[in-house]
Amino acid sequence: MITSTTGPQPADFADVRATNLAVVLRFVREHAPCSRADIAANTGLNKATVSSLVADLIDRRLVRETGLTENRVGRPATMLVLDGSPYAAIGVEINVDYVAAVATDLAGQRLLAWRRSFSAGESVNQGVANVAAIVRRVVNRMAKEERQVLGLAVAVPGLVDVQGAVRIAPNLGWRDADIGGDLAKALRDPGFSIQVDNDANLAALAEQRFGGNAGADDLVYLTGQMGVGAGVILDGRLRRGGLGYSGELGHVQLDPEGPACRCGRRGCLEAMAGIGAVLRRADPSPAEIEIELEEVVRSARAGDEATLATLAAVGAGLGRGVSIIANLLNPQVVILGGYYVALAPWLLPPVRAAVRDGSIAPQAGGCEVVASTLGHDAAALGGAARVLDSLDSGRLPGGISRTT
Amino acid sequence: MITSTTGPQPADFADVRATNLAVVLRFVREHAPCSRADIAANTGLNKATVSSLVADLIDRRLVRETGLTENRVGRPATMLVLDGSPYAAIGVEINVDYVAAVATDLAGQRLLAWRRSFSAGESVNQGVANVAAIVRRVVNRMAKEERQVLGLAVAVPGLVDVQGAVRIAPNLGWRDADIGGDLAKALRDPGFSIQVDNDANLAALAEQRFGGNAGADDLVYLTGQMGVGAGVILDGRLRRGGLGYSGELGHVQLDPEGPACRCGRRGCLEAMAGIGAVLRRADPSPAEIEIELEEVVRSARAGDEATLATLAAVGAGLGRGVSIIANLLNPQVVILGGYYVALAPWLLPPVRAAVRDGSIAPQAGGCEVVASTLGHDAAALGGAARVLDSLDSGRLPGGISRTT
Repeated sequence: MITSTTGPQPADFADVRATNLAVVLRFVREHAPCSRADIAANTGLNKATVSSLVADLIDRRLVRETGLTENRVGRPATMLVLDGSPYAAIGVEINVDYVAAVATDLAGQRLLAWRRSFSAGESVNQGVANVAAIVRRVVNRMAKEERQVLGLAVAVPGLVDVQGAVRIAPNLGWRDADIGGDLAKALRDPGFSIQVDNDANLAALAEQRFGGNAGADDLVYLTGQMGVGAGVILDGRLRRGGLGYSGELGHVQLDPEGPACRCGRRGCLEAMAGIGAVLRRADPSPAEIEIELEEVVRSARAGDEATLATLAAVGAGLGRGVSIIANLLNPQVVILGGYYVALAPWLLPPVRAAVRDGSIAPQAGGCEVVASTLGHDAAALGGAARVLDSLDSGRLPGGISRTT
Repeated sequence: MITSTTGPQPADFADVRATNLAVVLRFVREHAPCSRADIAANTGLNKATVSSLVADLIDRRLVRETGLTENRVGRPATMLVLDGSPYAAIGVEINVDYVAAVATDLAGQRLLAWRRSFSAGESVNQGVANVAAIVRRVVNRMAKEERQVLGLAVAVPGLVDVQGAVRIAPNLGWRDADIGGDLAKALRDPGFSIQVDNDANLAALAEQRFGGNAGADDLVYLTGQMGVGAGVILDGRLRRGGLGYSGELGHVQLDPEGPACRCGRRGCLEAMAGIGAVLRRADPSPAEIEIELEEVVRSARAGDEATLATLAAVGAGLGRGVSIIANLLNPQVVILGGYYVALAPWLLPPVRAAVRDGSIAPQAGGCEVVASTLGHDAAALGGAARVLDSLDSGRLPGGISRTT
C-alpha cells in the first residue's frame, strides 16, 4: 500500500479551534502590540472568531490587553501583547564538562541561565542525577515566581532517535540511554513534558527563534563543541531524517589521507576542524579546553604565525564541510556555534572562501556563514524554544473550555 | 520583525472544502477500491461531508463508482475508484542527448512514453522548439483520447531556482533561461500550467509516488547522467533550499588530491564516480555513452579485471558521496538512477560497504541503497508526478461549484 504525506491533511473541524488558538498566539508573539483587527486582517480569520479566540487566550493568561490603543478611523482598538507571566519553558544542555539550564517566558525572554560543571565520563545515572538536581532548582525558582513550567527539553551531544532515546553520545560515553524516562523518575513525574534531543538540533531551533537570523526558513547550525554536529532546518522545520540521526557532519570524511579521527576513521571533519585541530592535540581534556582556547585567541590576536596557520587550516577544513552543506542543502545561512564563536575573526574568512570556491551555485547559492550570537547556552535556549514550539503547534496549557 | 513558518497555518474555513476534496481524492488514489464509509473512518471527516465531497469529485470525473460492493454488516457499500479518464498529466525531461516525454492518468498509469534524440549544445531556442514539438504531439494524442491536460512539468539537468528559471545547466550550456515562459509562448498559452524543475528533484518525486520505495518520507534520488545530482525528500516533501539549488552532490569534493573535474576543481564526486570515471575518459561524447556503457556491462559480466577494478573504484567514490548523505540527512533510502542502474550489480556492493563504514550511526542509520526500478524516464515521470502533486494539494480542475 502506498502511503504518502505529500498532500494536505484533512482539516478536522474539531482541531480547527486549537489550531486557530495557536495561530493567534503566534501572531501576537511576532507582532505585539497588535489589535484584534490586525489579527483578523493578517490571518484570514473573521473578526468574531478572533474575538472569541483572544478571549480564550486571555482566560489562559497567554495574552493580555495593554492600556495602549491604536488610533484608526473609527473607534480606537485595544492592543494585545503576550502575557505568559504564569508560565516558563526550561531547556537544559548536557555537555562533556558542564550542564547548562535556561528558563524563558513565553516571549523567549531569559528568566535565568545557570551552568554547573560536570565531569566527563560520568555514568548515565550520575548524569541524570546532576540534571535532575539543576532542574529541581529551576522549577523551585519558577514556583517562587508563581510560574507553571510548560515543559523541559534536554540537549545531548550525540545520536538521539526520533523517540528521544540517546543511542550513542560518544563524548559522554553513553549508549542506549532513556534520559527522558530516567529524568521523569528522578523528578517524580513532575507534571510537565520532558523531551530529549540532539544538541545541534536544539541550538538550530534557538537560532531560528532568537538568533541573528531568526525567521530564516533554511538554516544550518554547527556545534563547535568536542564534536561537530549540524542542526538542519529546511522549509521552517527541523529535519531529523528517518530515525533522527541527521546532521552528523563531524564524521563526514573530507580527506581519505587526512589525520586520524577519534572515531577510528581518517580525515573526518572533526579531525580536521574540531577543537582538537584548533588546540593541535588529538584528545584535549574537556576541563582544559576553555583555558587553552583563550590562549589560542591571545596568540592569534598577537599575530603568532603558527597559531594563524593552524586557524587558517582549520578554517579551510571547516569551510569544506560548510561547502558540502551549501551544495547539498542550499541554506540561507550556516551559523557557527560553540568554540567557533571565539575563533570567528580568524575562521570566517577561510570558511567563506572555501564555501565560495566549493559551491557549484553562483555566490554559493546565497549561503552566508556567520558566528552565533547566542553564546554557549544556545542548545539550552533551544530546549526552551522547543517547548515554545509545542505551544505554537497547538498544545496549549489547560483544556479548551470555551466554544463558539 | 520575526516571521517564522514553524507553527500551523490558520485553518481558513473557505479553504477547508478544497483541502478536504483533495484529501478524499488522495485517499481514493491510495486505497481504491474503497467505500464512503472507509473514507469517513480514515480521514476523520463525517459521513455527510464525505458524501458531499464524493459527489463533487464524481461531478468532476475525478472519482467514479464501480459496480462492486463491499459486504459489511448492514447494507452493502458502493465502492469508489479513481476515474480521471478525461485527464492527463505530462512530464518531459530535457537531457544532454534526448528529450523524454511521459503522460499519465490520475492514477499514474503511463498513457505514453516517448523519447527523441536531441543534440547536445543546442541553443535554448532550439531546445525549447524541440520540447514544444514533442509536447504538441503529446497534447494532440491526449486530445484524441478526449483527455484534458492538467499540467506539464519539465525536468532540466541543472540549477533551477524556486521560480522555475534555469540558472545554469552546464551540460546543456544554458544559462539564465526562462524555459517555462518560452515554452508557454511556443505552445501559444496552452491553457495548462507549465512548471520547470531540476531533473533529480522530479525523479525523486517519481520514486516517492511510483518507485520501489514509494511512500518513503525520507528519500534521496541520485541521477547518474552526465552529471550527478540529488533529489532530497525529507518528511514527505522535496527540500529545495533557500533558492532552489539543493542536491548538488556532483561537485562535493571527496578528495583534494583527486582527479580533475570538468568544473575546474579536483576530486569532485562527478570526477570520481560520474559516467566519465566509469568510461575512463574525462569528457565522454553523450551520443556514445549508451553504446560504451553496454560494453562496460559486457566486460564486467565477462569478469574483465580492469573493468571490475574501475567499477569497484567508482563504487567506492559513489559510496563516499552516499555516506555524506546518510550522515547529514539520515534518509531511509538512497536510490541510484540513470546509468547507475545498469551498473548496479557491481556498484551496489562497494557503495553499501562505503556507506556502512562511513556512517557514524549504527547500521548506517537504517539507510538502504538501491537501484531505481523506474528506468530512464524517471525524471519525465516525475514531471507528471509533480502535476499530480498539485492536484493532491488542492488545485483541482474546474471551479468548486457545490457548497454544503
